Amino acid sequence: MESNSNILPRPLRGIIPPMITPLLDRDTLDVAGLERLIEHILSGGVHGLFILGTTGEAPSLSHRLRYELIERACKQVNRRVPVLVGITDTCFAESINMANKATEAGADAVVLAPPYYFPAGQAELLEYLEHLTPELPLPLFLYNMPSLTKAVFEPQTVKAAAQIQGIAGIKDSSGNMAYFHRLQFVLQDRPDFSLLMGHEELLAEAVLLGASGSVCGGANILPKLYVDIYNATCSRDLETMEILHKRIMQISASIYGVGRYHSSYLKGLKCSLSCMGICSDFLAEPFHRFRSAEREVIRRHLEELGIIKKQS
Amino acid sequence: MESNSNILPRPLRGIIPPMITPLLDRDTLDVAGLERLIEHILSGGVHGLFILGTTGEAPSLSHRLRYELIERACKQVNRRVPVLVGITDTCFAESINMANKATEAGADAVVLAPPYYFPAGQAELLEYLEHLTPELPLPLFLYNMPSLTKAVFEPQTVKAAAQIQGIAGIKDSSGNMAYFHRLQFVLQDRPDFSLLMGHEELLAEAVLLGASGSVCGGANILPKLYVDIYNATCSRDLETMEILHKRIMQISASIYGVGRYHSSYLKGLKCSLSCMGICSDFLAEPFHRFRSAEREVIRRHLEELGIIKKQS
Amino acid sequence: MESNSNILPRPLRGIIPPMITPLLDRDTLDVAGLERLIEHILSGGVHGLFILGTTGEAPSLSHRLRYELIERACKQVNRRVPVLVGITDTCFAESINMANKATEAGADAVVLAPPYYFPAGQAELLEYLEHLTPELPLPLFLYNMPSLTKAVFEPQTVKAAAQIQGIAGIKDSSGNMAYFHRLQFVLQDRPDFSLLMGHEELLAEAVLLGASGSVCGGANILPKLYVDIYNATCSRDLETMEILHKRIMQISASIYGVGRYHSSYLKGLKCSLSCMGICSDFLAEPFHRFRSAEREVIRRHLEELGIIKKQS
Amino acid sequence: MESNSNILPRPLRGIIPPMITPLLDRDTLDVAGLERLIEHILSGGVHGLFILGTTGEAPSLSHRLRYELIERACKQVNRRVPVLVGITDTCFAESINMANKATEAGADAVVLAPPYYFPAGQAELLEYLEHLTPELPLPLFLYNMPSLTKAVFEPQTVKAAAQIQGIAGIKDSSGNMAYFHRLQFVLQDRPDFSLLMGHEELLAEAVLLGASGSVCGGANILPKLYVDIYNATCSRDLETMEILHKRIMQISASIYGVGRYHSSYLKGLKCSLSCMGICSDFLAEPFHRFRSAEREVIRRHLEELGIIKKQS
Repeated sequence: MESNSNILPRPLRGIIPPMITPLLDRDTLDVAGLERLIEHILSGGVHGLFILGTTGEAPSLSHRLRYELIERACKQVNRRVPVLVGITDTCFAESINMANKATEAGADAVVLAPPYYFPAGQAELLEYLEHLTPELPLPLFLYNMPSLTKAVFEPQTVKAAAQIQGIAGIKDSSGNMAYFHRLQFVLQDRPDFSLLMGHEELLAEAVLLGASGSVCGGANILPKLYVDIYNATCSRDLETMEILHKRIMQISASIYGVGRYHSSYLKGLKCSLSCMGICSDFLAEPFHRFRSAEREVIRRHLEELGIIKKQS
Repeated sequence: MESNSNILPRPLRGIIPPMITPLLDRDTLDVAGLERLIEHILSGGVHGLFILGTTGEAPSLSHRLRYELIERACKQVNRRVPVLVGITDTCFAESINMANKATEAGADAVVLAPPYYFPAGQAELLEYLEHLTPELPLPLFLYNMPSLTKAVFEPQTVKAAAQIQGIAGIKDSSGNMAYFHRLQFVLQDRPDFSLLMGHEELLAEAVLLGASGSVCGGANILPKLYVDIYNATCSRDLETMEILHKRIMQISASIYGVGRYHSSYLKGLKCSLSCMGICSDFLAEPFHRFRSAEREVIRRHLEELGIIKKQS
Repeated sequence: MESNSNILPRPLRGIIPPMITPLLDRDTLDVAGLERLIEHILSGGVHGLFILGTTGEAPSLSHRLRYELIERACKQVNRRVPVLVGITDTCFAESINMANKATEAGADAVVLAPPYYFPAGQAELLEYLEHLTPELPLPLFLYNMPSLTKAVFEPQTVKAAAQIQGIAGIKDSSGNMAYFHRLQFVLQDRPDFSLLMGHEELLAEAVLLGASGSVCGGANILPKLYVDIYNATCSRDLETMEILHKRIMQISASIYGVGRYHSSYLKGLKCSLSCMGICSDFLAEPFHRFRSAEREVIRRHLEELGIIKKQS
Repeated sequence: MESNSNILPRPLRGIIPPMITPLLDRDTLDVAGLERLIEHILSGGVHGLFILGTTGEAPSLSHRLRYELIERACKQVNRRVPVLVGITDTCFAESINMANKATEAGADAVVLAPPYYFPAGQAELLEYLEHLTPELPLPLFLYNMPSLTKAVFEPQTVKAAAQIQGIAGIKDSSGNMAYFHRLQFVLQDRPDFSLLMGHEELLAEAVLLGASGSVCGGANILPKLYVDIYNATCSRDLETMEILHKRIMQISASIYGVGRYHSSYLKGLKCSLSCMGICSDFLAEPFHRFRSAEREVIRRHLEELGIIKKQS
């Protein structure tokens, strides 16, 4: 079998949406919704698809359902863009199992945050990567997400990890832009190493100052918007960049700000996709979809943003 | 099949050690070590056994290995004491799968911390318990461990949860004694509800002021010590209680204080059991056993504590 | 001048209430209220008085007002019990200024938390104490309050600090009982060193297991209750101790739990004293007294607790 | 007396360095060093000077010394650029005292972070500003510094505060760029309101996307560098901007990264200025200047950066 990694650009450039996982109930995929969602996202001209990340609620899904999703998503994408699969797990062996499933299904890379129950020290994290990476059949992207994993990949750890054969890049969702610049600084002699910004509000400046791309949740709803700002930024069209940046801030302020708790972002995304007729808004436990009051607020925001038509 | 819960005392009283998981490598049980360890613990007169908790490294173990451990441990215990099985998972369905395995194997109760990737709000946590508990075939103990799960079971949430049929108690490992007293305060009309102290340094005072028992990691090494302090405290023998409390503090200061990082406690426990000839000290990723320098320090501490004989 | 420290017992034993500061407005003492409050507290048989701590809102008061309070309080107490004065400041020189004022006014000891703007490391904290203590004319109590100062006095740092001439003890308000036991453990050969529990919900067990006394805010309202539980605990009257412990938990659950934010405890204390006719409930900025709705709740709780008579 | 605020541009644009405070010992200004430092900074073409901020170690300085600094600095600057004075204090009345001193000395604005001992809620913070601002004789800049004050000015709070007469802008030192964009978003109809980036590594992108200026500590050492990147960014000279941004990252990685603890940044700044022959490197307690080993590392970094000449 030819290596999938041949088709993975180094660095991976552009917009790689972290796909939400359409669910009918807590252990059932919304298969039709999944197909519509993938087509909707790809129609925006994105450069890759990342499944089973935080936005994909991966930790809340059973292994069985994750396997099913990997298969269906890879089949639906059908190599039109690279597919990246989240394999983060608190258990080493389960991460490898997931990576093997991803390989069988035809995915192009895997993505891994630190084990998220026990917080590991930097030396422990590096050793973990040194042990894990050789057992992975696909290129690996690190995933920095300290607010949820309790462990950060320090820049010096990333620099050392970038020497490990098989580690292709890092996606940073810390929201800490100074950290991101430090990553860029320590990796400035590695133009092949992908630096992906995981915070859509920081997309423009990250790409302007050297990020290779962005993993942005809003691209589930408006894939073309994020592709457009990426292109405008790459071509140094600052005027367009600023206009689109404001639109992203508007989406963030309206769609992700409804409801309380950490789950607002996820609920807002899924609710929007449901209002747009693309897929179900069911969330895996411990979360639940918006009730009708919040859904009405989301619907109104989507109308104001011109994403759906006003109800008459 | 008769209900296992018939044999579970309400409340569950006494010392219920959180067993470490003896491993030969990252996905292989140390079967002989496991048998020796269970016999060693039970020989101390403990009142129950808790497997697959934090001390058991449950999140770092594959589901397959966890199933194997449940079966072997229940078989080895053979109903001499109640067996409690940790079913904490970020995925609802996986927790139920684990509870079903525990039931089949003959366990007596299950133990559940909040899903630990996405931090849930209190209303979300309660709803989670309302959905999960009816699907569990065994009595459920809540497990409060905010430093690792990022979510606390607030006293009012526990009070509400105690109304749910099937929830039998709570194990608190927050180390926050004021919180524990608040739990006792809001549950003072529920003498059947188990309040288990998960921090061995707080065992004496917790039991003295009303806890029904304690889940204490040191009981892997010295089960009788913890049973003795429990009994002394129950019988209001304050003099003995204080002497044994100091011994617990000494163990904590010496055995758990070697090395850096959060993993010192786990490494110290497993290293001690290995020095005592009971089982392997292999740790699951992302941790690793102590190297020879730290092992020597542990060995010396064990000698000074009179737990192993001096090497001549 | 004779040394004040002659009258300070080593260790300092018993109940040392952290007095709230009665205010008429943000820079004016409630002088009459202050006199009534001191007499009310001393009438309970307390063993000392601690002014200008966290409960005394010291950081929110001008230096001028703090000086006035020190003078008036020392004069009113008139050596009936030792007076301890908080001198915590972000500025070294201001802490010394405050200690000098305390000495002039006839206080018996000073109390110091770490500088609370810049979080210092342990080596920096120890060096700070080595520089500061020789310049203080009164014995010094350390004040561990990590939630507000962002720095903890680690047990090994306290052990080293206890060697510094002039450091007499530590008050721990971390709420971390395992930490408190570790302090006791490393200081077990120093029976003269005061270990004061700063969390009233942990008073009983701390004293039972070796604390010399307690600094408990509720003693502003009910000084005798805290003196009684201290005495019951010292004489190993566990039955009385448990009854009084429950009453403390009840006060905590009712009086300190009204309103939102961190300020509930302070607002509840001051509101209670106002309802009891002792002093004004004005709080220094950035806080404000309870409005009438919350005041009604507090009044009802005080009635239920039998602290004030029911309004007819 | 004519209003100082007449000369304060709305918004305040450009580079406003947060000046370190040159000290000879813990309560003595390095007067000659102060004069040299101010001339050094102004020679770089900066647009203002901010004294008594975090970089100025304000909380560690006595009120007396702060007053002396305000007078000397304002006299030395002599209205060549606006002077902003930090008045942050845990006590309301002391902040007003400091603002009055600043006015008398001829300063142009004051800067205020939340009271930093008791963490206030958002409603409490807004009320605090509503009470304080009318009593201030100079325009007020808010100062967002959550890591040290434990309280954040939430965007909606800033939006409401911007309606208060006298509040002229905000300096954000959170390092949270998404937060900064949210501030910009909620204040987009207030072009007169100053948005100052307090994190030099984020200067370029902040100005590019709409910040009016930046408060950057490195400008103590290299004022012209920060003025140059500001100008390049304003004129959309992206190539120059990127080159200078990399130089800023290099300074950050080398000068601020020596030593342990939070104090590395401050020690690195003061040590550099001492190596450059500008002023003393004495730090106020609880910190201390670098010892010779670290000083050698800093000296070598400064040589490599071309800031000082190689020793022959």
